[in-house]
Amino acid sequence: MNIQANDPKLTSWVAVPEDSDFPIQNIPFGVAMPPANNPRVATIIGDKVVDLLVAHDLGLFEGVAIKREVLDQSYINDLMALGKDTCRAVRNRISEFMRSDDTLGAKSHADRLLHKVSDCELLLPVKVGDYTDFYSSEEHATNVGTMFRDPDNALLPNWKHLPVGYHGRASSIVVSDTPIHRPTGQTMPADADQPVFGPCKLLDFELEMGFVVGKDSKMGERISTDQAEDYIFGLVLFNDWSARDIQKWEYVPLGPFLAKSFASTISPWVVTLDAVEPFRTAGPKQDPEVLPYLKYKGEKNYELDLEVAIQTDSGQEKTVCKSNFKYMYWNMCQQLAHHTVNGCNFKVGDMCASGTISGKSPDSYGSMLELSWKGTKSIPMPDGTERKFLKDGDRVVLRGYGIHKGVRIGFGDCAGKILPAREM
Amino acid sequence: MNIQANDPKLTSWVAVPEDSDFPIQNIPFGVAMPPANNPRVATIIGDKVVDLLVAHDLGLFEGVAIKREVLDQSYINDLMALGKDTCRAVRNRISEFMRSDDTLGAKSHADRLLHKVSDCELLLPVKVGDYTDFYSSEEHATNVGTMFRDPDNALLPNWKHLPVGYHGRASSIVVSDTPIHRPTGQTMPADADQPVFGPCKLLDFELEMGFVVGKDSKMGERISTDQAEDYIFGLVLFNDWSARDIQKWEYVPLGPFLAKSFASTISPWVVTLDAVEPFRTAGPKQDPEVLPYLKYKGEKNYELDLEVAIQTDSGQEKTVCKSNFKYMYWNMCQQLAHHTVNGCNFKVGDMCASGTISGKSPDSYGSMLELSWKGTKSIPMPDGTERKFLKDGDRVVLRGYGIHKGVRIGFGDCAGKILPAREM
Repeated sequence: MNIQANDPKLTSWVAVPEDSDFPIQNIPFGVAMPPANNPRVATIIGDKVVDLLVAHDLGLFEGVAIKREVLDQSYINDLMALGKDTCRAVRNRISEFMRSDDTLGAKSHADRLLHKVSDCELLLPVKVGDYTDFYSSEEHATNVGTMFRDPDNALLPNWKHLPVGYHGRASSIVVSDTPIHRPTGQTMPADADQPVFGPCKLLDFELEMGFVVGKDSKMGERISTDQAEDYIFGLVLFNDWSARDIQKWEYVPLGPFLAKSFASTISPWVVTLDAVEPFRTAGPKQDPEVLPYLKYKGEKNYELDLEVAIQTDSGQEKTVCKSNFKYMYWNMCQQLAHHTVNGCNFKVGDMCASGTISGKSPDSYGSMLELSWKGTKSIPMPDGTERKFLKDGDRVVLRGYGIHKGVRIGFGDCAGKILPAREM
Repeated sequence: MNIQANDPKLTSWVAVPEDSDFPIQNIPFGVAMPPANNPRVATIIGDKVVDLLVAHDLGLFEGVAIKREVLDQSYINDLMALGKDTCRAVRNRISEFMRSDDTLGAKSHADRLLHKVSDCELLLPVKVGDYTDFYSSEEHATNVGTMFRDPDNALLPNWKHLPVGYHGRASSIVVSDTPIHRPTGQTMPADADQPVFGPCKLLDFELEMGFVVGKDSKMGERISTDQAEDYIFGLVLFNDWSARDIQKWEYVPLGPFLAKSFASTISPWVVTLDAVEPFRTAGPKQDPEVLPYLKYKGEKNYELDLEVAIQTDSGQEKTVCKSNFKYMYWNMCQQLAHHTVNGCNFKVGDMCASGTISGKSPDSYGSMLELSWKGTKSIPMPDGTERKFLKDGDRVVLRGYGIHKGVRIGFGDCAGKILPAREM
């Protein structure tokens, strides 16, 4: 039974297609540029962008402590900085004026309040300060360790004691549907004794989830696993594009650098932690026991289906990976507690990504590196071609959603098309 | 002969002590908060902060394309974003109205225009977007490789082919004289089979230079070694505080993370590339030959003396390291060309640091790790104590300067005092 269809408090006066990620229970935040208009903070219901700046002008936020200028922005940072209580009040009010019973009379303003999503440009929703990428899927780390080191000691000694992570590049985080040029760089071919320069030959995606921090912490201040959810504003899908051949040559001893910094793609809507509350689930048992600062209470994983599809130039699509966010060995609260245990501070807009999320079965591996097992296996595509890594013209689409009591909460597509390398 | 003492065009109507880093030839940019006032963009001559907001109000920038609001800021980012030509015009005008001949009559407004530096709070001058740390001193990389790997193959195979670097944490970059709490974290003691949690035991400094980017580049756009200086606005001293025991346990395989992200300290004044022009010098010969995108023309290193002093709690000081910026194997232009060769974009305010700058002689090593040779040697302090790594109460001071024709151009102290770890 789809509860959306019945209870007027749980449905919107905007029609929501059954497979939509955005019923009235979601109400994510993003930034949209409607035709001939400036960017503004928005949400989405079904395939309609709800213009929150217009909503403010219509008086629909009366009594909610949010000023117009917070919505007249190119990023949601100022909104997040108002704090979770205020953002909850904003979401509750949106829920109220978008509900089928239309008690606030918003529907009569639909022509101003709504924009077709296809008419809007969706912008990068968050001005990202710092960005950190973790490496928190045991299956992914095991696969990589098996391929590149020792199948019998695939995980390095620190892996089960702390959520391994590294700082990533914030400036090149882009919103879904930004085209990605194949990066160029230095690699060391097998059997060569001199590096060469040219387009990356082993271009890959990484299926990840990102979380956005919505509250500042002070330098020296630790965020405990108990406090962490107060700092995590919401989630996005995150494609950590990776140039495997560049990575292999550059990454010793200081980690990935240019192999990652050419681009990372996020989905356009930040889905609040509140919206994914119904999908909480227990994480994997952690053995050995973790140090006290990494212990946590309650369920901190989320049962959210994730998938990656590749669309070839001919327009045909193949789902190459089906995974789930619940597979994470280290949860977001542990990641944040670890990240701040040395006193490192967070600012509103900082992002963390999970690392590639792979499951146990080969069809749940979250990167071509694993799916093609280092290029030893080919993945057939519907147009008759094969893939070991990504080809120019491929469009990679990450999707994610959960379904609870018939209500689907999702993220929208996180997509990027590979364009040829630029001229050297 | 000190030319400052003679030519009225080369001296200021503000007295400049002979050992000052800030003669009228320097004119760096920073942000100062004078008593009972808001932060504003400023420069410094001798020991007087020159209030550029007041200078604007006095009409001293008439004819220069700079608006008042660019100076009424907590960061110099908006100033830098005006471009090098405008920033040069601003520096030239400051030089004009601060010169001994006082042709613009600024001296009569000295009471408003100047503040004693000791009366001002000097703030972090740059709002840092992304921060990257390189590893570009051959001597430092060789020392580390010798200690931790193989003296006969101290440099990893990639080191002489590309400037190895990694993304660092921007949020915890602080200005000189911000106290630094000893970080706490997870380490694996020798002979243990379980990690432990507690204050870092091997706290270190790293003597580095940082450069500030003053111009945006687009994603996909490369900055060639020829173009790089147009993007590099200026230089600061950079102390990349490091927790060696945390680093050792966490850094495989993705690089340094919490061992660095608790704090990095920069000097308060951004010294423009123009100001250090007299100190250009040739860098070390690069052998093997580098790939074409890393080749460069002209002199891209800078002869700037660098030193590190440790002041003990008793107030006594010892210079533990004397190095020079000219020792860099990879220069800043090569670093920027490499960083963007994959299409990674830069934004105004992004920073890059050099990596520890060590010379050939043991007294030129830029970290306690090297000076104490991994803790096997002790460094005697004037108060009778010894150091292998840093103790609580130590104040570490980085200094840097060049002297050309009797004019000393320097950076001011880049200092930080170590406070005990916070309660767990």
